[in-house]
Amino acid sequence: MTLRQTGEFERIERIFAPLADAWPGALGLRDDAALVVPSAGCEIVVTMDTVVAGVHFVGDEPAEFIAAKLLRVNLSDLAAMGARPLVYTLSIALPKSVGDDWLERFAQGLAADQKTFGVALAGGDSVATPGPMTLTITALGEVALGKSLHRAGARSGDGVYVTGTIGDATLGLRAVRGGLPDLAPSDRMALIQRYQCPEPRLAVGQALVGLASAAVDVSDGLVADLQHLAAASEVSATVKAAAVPLSPAVSKMIENKPDLMEAVLTGGDDYELLLTAPANAGAKLGGLAATLGVPIARIGEVAEGSGVRVVDASGRNIEIQKPGYTHG
Amino acid sequence: MTLRQTGEFERIERIFAPLADAWPGALGLRDDAALVVPSAGCEIVVTMDTVVAGVHFVGDEPAEFIAAKLLRVNLSDLAAMGARPLVYTLSIALPKSVGDDWLERFAQGLAADQKTFGVALAGGDSVATPGPMTLTITALGEVALGKSLHRAGARSGDGVYVTGTIGDATLGLRAVRGGLPDLAPSDRMALIQRYQCPEPRLAVGQALVGLASAAVDVSDGLVADLQHLAAASEVSATVKAAAVPLSPAVSKMIENKPDLMEAVLTGGDDYELLLTAPANAGAKLGGLAATLGVPIARIGEVAEGSGVRVVDASGRNIEIQKPGYTHG
Repeated sequence: MTLRQTGEFERIERIFAPLADAWPGALGLRDDAALVVPSAGCEIVVTMDTVVAGVHFVGDEPAEFIAAKLLRVNLSDLAAMGARPLVYTLSIALPKSVGDDWLERFAQGLAADQKTFGVALAGGDSVATPGPMTLTITALGEVALGKSLHRAGARSGDGVYVTGTIGDATLGLRAVRGGLPDLAPSDRMALIQRYQCPEPRLAVGQALVGLASAAVDVSDGLVADLQHLAAASEVSATVKAAAVPLSPAVSKMIENKPDLMEAVLTGGDDYELLLTAPANAGAKLGGLAATLGVPIARIGEVAEGSGVRVVDASGRNIEIQKPGYTHG
Repeated sequence: MTLRQTGEFERIERIFAPLADAWPGALGLRDDAALVVPSAGCEIVVTMDTVVAGVHFVGDEPAEFIAAKLLRVNLSDLAAMGARPLVYTLSIALPKSVGDDWLERFAQGLAADQKTFGVALAGGDSVATPGPMTLTITALGEVALGKSLHRAGARSGDGVYVTGTIGDATLGLRAVRGGLPDLAPSDRMALIQRYQCPEPRLAVGQALVGLASAAVDVSDGLVADLQHLAAASEVSATVKAAAVPLSPAVSKMIENKPDLMEAVLTGGDDYELLLTAPANAGAKLGGLAATLGVPIARIGEVAEGSGVRVVDASGRNIEIQKPGYTHG
């Protein structure tokens, strides 16, 4: 697992070893593997995500943004399990064209987020590739034994809740690609930021342990991820479209172009938490939202059966053509 | 961390989910992350390795071999730390040209080695790439708290030992590439097998806990990896070339072409364990070798100072042009 590449061992070590300083178990990135000791009574939670230049990012974004998004997407998975992040390992497959300057900015992006989220680099690999840059992070967290949040667990009668606001990231992606010409510049920047730099809901996720009956992060799209949760829980769910929380920028867009609502409901990359909780948990969730400063909105209900319905203010089904990213 | 790819969610799940059956904490690969509970009194050991088609493998090897080597290289890192393997996560960046047939054979290779080594798939990611296939495994193991083997720890007076035989893999790589035309067919096959399908020394590694003062797996080359160990331990080491254990096939090659000895000493991919142990550990190491059926040869000594010397039968330095893969 030593970070290495023909003739560049020292270069990689110089740039990345400082990211491992805060974790003694990383052994300075100089050993065959790293050590991770979970706290007493905790189990390890592990997740892994890969991004490829030209597929998951354009390639000309600032290196810091690419670093932050890759790390945050992994942390969001830990958040959805109710876990506290500990460390991550990083594998970078680098084209020859990538120089020290890019790697240093990439490492700066990681360093900044390590401080924000209390994680450290524990190890990884570095290889050459004749293809596009390919980056993989495996993140390890911990959660009290047997207490992690799963997609299965929702029960008939539970409420469906979501943190933050939905749809910003997918409209941000359209804006990055030159779409949505009517957007005000400040709204454009806000949406692009949500797409490029998601906020993993770690504090909320950890606080949901013992409170939520099921949880998932919204990565594929609100409807698709609720379908995953409902299928795993063997229940059905109904979402009131009017209850889905929208940012001011997205609200304005929808007012002008109501057709965009389907994109909001099905676009991915929000990295908010979608959860279910028993009817009597509403007050506690409200208190949590206030304490943590993260809105948690009730958007629907769980019932027996299967599938996900989205309904308008008068309870009529809203037809969804394409529920989300992975099932198109 | 759900294994996913646009329009291929079910395909990937169908092929890979069975590999997760043996690990309940994998949650059927359907959740955001996986759970790993270390045994009481143990800590987690984590390592990560990436291979790229056209760089680390030719691309036309049987898919099972590619799977086995990637998994085994990771397990070898765990072995070098004295760890028992638990689970691994897998990220696959797939070109469009890769079909179900290839993935199924790849999964079969993993399934076979899962049985051999007692590990299971716990999660991962699957993405599309316009470039070469890029495969990453992160392996998690466990070791008694504070007992893991490190590169640092060798002391003046310790012996230097190595398991198995050295040089087969690097000559196997030459054979794969069409070199070494004089090789007998059976020797050619034996060497290629050592290159394509290394044997992670897990049982030896675990038995070395409390016995070895330092350990590393021979991935970059015997001399280079001993340099890493010596540098981390702040000692020097001397290796007797004549004591380095060779397979019959390699011995025959060296007899005919003594110049190949440098390749044997510096070629990578052996995935044997290189270790140091106090002078009084010799008998125990012998007993261990007999019990586990894995040769452990004493090849040199640790002294104060720095650097690694290789000497011939009369104690004269053998000049090494290029100690190993990463420092060329």
